[in-house]
Amino acid sequence: MTSNQEASFMEYGFFNGEFITLDTAKVQLEDRGYQFGDGIYEATRVYNGKCFALERHLARCRRSLRELRIPITYMDEELTAIHYDLIQKSGIQNGVIYFQITRATAPRTHYFPDQVIPNLSMTIRESEPNRKWQEDGIACMLAEDIRWLRCDIKSLNLLGNVLAKQAAHEKGLQGAIQFRKDTDLITEGSSSNFFIVKDGLIWTHPTDNLILKGVTRSILLEEVIPQLGYTVVEKAFTPEFALSAAEAFVTSTSLEVTPVVNIDGHTIGNGTPGKITQSLLQGYRELVQKECYNA
Amino acid sequence: MTSNQEASFMEYGFFNGEFITLDTAKVQLEDRGYQFGDGIYEATRVYNGKCFALERHLARCRRSLRELRIPITYMDEELTAIHYDLIQKSGIQNGVIYFQITRATAPRTHYFPDQVIPNLSMTIRESEPNRKWQEDGIACMLAEDIRWLRCDIKSLNLLGNVLAKQAAHEKGLQGAIQFRKDTDLITEGSSSNFFIVKDGLIWTHPTDNLILKGVTRSILLEEVIPQLGYTVVEKAFTPEFALSAAEAFVTSTSLEVTPVVNIDGHTIGNGTPGKITQSLLQGYRELVQKECYNA
Repeated sequence: MTSNQEASFMEYGFFNGEFITLDTAKVQLEDRGYQFGDGIYEATRVYNGKCFALERHLARCRRSLRELRIPITYMDEELTAIHYDLIQKSGIQNGVIYFQITRATAPRTHYFPDQVIPNLSMTIRESEPNRKWQEDGIACMLAEDIRWLRCDIKSLNLLGNVLAKQAAHEKGLQGAIQFRKDTDLITEGSSSNFFIVKDGLIWTHPTDNLILKGVTRSILLEEVIPQLGYTVVEKAFTPEFALSAAEAFVTSTSLEVTPVVNIDGHTIGNGTPGKITQSLLQGYRELVQKECYNA
Repeated sequence: MTSNQEASFMEYGFFNGEFITLDTAKVQLEDRGYQFGDGIYEATRVYNGKCFALERHLARCRRSLRELRIPITYMDEELTAIHYDLIQKSGIQNGVIYFQITRATAPRTHYFPDQVIPNLSMTIRESEPNRKWQEDGIACMLAEDIRWLRCDIKSLNLLGNVLAKQAAHEKGLQGAIQFRKDTDLITEGSSSNFFIVKDGLIWTHPTDNLILKGVTRSILLEEVIPQLGYTVVEKAFTPEFALSAAEAFVTSTSLEVTPVVNIDGHTIGNGTPGKITQSLLQGYRELVQKECYNA
């Protein structure tokens, strides 16, 4: 932080009221985030120096906290201000701001400690959506969904997702589509929601305990799809059903809307991004444009 | 460290080669243990200044690391030496040493980072087995097992256990016995293995992906039970089957062998610790005596 040149290589973060560089150690061994994964997180995209759909992320953050009964000690206004302070301090115009809130730092015992003072940490990193993936489509594998039964909570217990994504990565694939073995039904991607298009209908898993209610998913369902006049079927389907789809895509803050053109070696549709998928990505980009560039 | 008064209130830990007090912050925000729960742990009891069954804990640690494909960078001899250094520095003669190893500190991405240097942290705390619980027995609740499908790995993804234990705690109960809803079969306690005695046979869940292979469980099955001449049935059973048992008990490093005399308001047997349970606890204590007091 002493010279400008050094600062340009600095990576910025925030911990409990203090702006820090990411090489600073701020977390104690007995932070419950470190010992139990006892906390929640959000990741928001920054376009043109502005946070896209931050209110939705903060609303979901509050829900996750309530579900885990972690007290809400940071107001939306305060979290928003820290997001913008991080943008300003880092000078990053296009990137991702990640934050997590853990229950407390306390002597290790499974049940909640009596004195709960949540810990807030944040990071910012430069990043652009992967345009090549959006243009060409990505190839995914099917992976058994071995995660816990509260995937609706955006918690820090992410080993299931990590292992699925690593398995895909090792096969040179861009993601994993997870399915529950007991029901043979697809749930979601390893860090995304999964959709298919079949007979002109858009299918995706309903929001229950088995999937995360993605912010991008909600924006598509509530804003983009109604405007374009498509119909959504929120109903779980099998891997077999998905392989015979005309189009497939995944959505997330990071991926926006990214076509899936191959699953487990099977070509989806004609192997190129589908028309409906492309129109959804276009509709999503227009919302980003409106909120972050034209304001 | 035993000489000055302040030191007697210090709580000791260890992080990556350095002995620290627990109020020291050593962990960076992007330690994968903090952001993904991407790591494993062990907890070993110290009796009379000696670690009981440490070799078994270290063997299980290696297995957990292998299953998560975290490189093994700490040898058993090294980990053992740190355990004994912590005992010496803290002056604690009876307690629990906890350690965890996380994959790495790296910019956040789900799949494994290229450069992996695991982080080791350890804590020591004074603690004695709860003799009153062992003498009177404990009351537990039944709780749906919502955890992921790799409970055989002693990972840091512990929210399912945390929520089950908290639910019991709020009911004034000492633990939760978890069962899978899809099969209606009991798996294990919220941080213990679960056993029942019925018609003179000892029942417990087999070691598969749904339970942790507890060190205390292994010691009972391999050392105590054969010596006492009992028979073990390693087979899953329903909550209903358990409620009609003659005896029930949980095992863990922390609980040793602790009788369960009430489950969900139903008295087990005659509501007092069963004879077989008591003989197993006695057999376990004799092993502790032999390893930690008579050496």
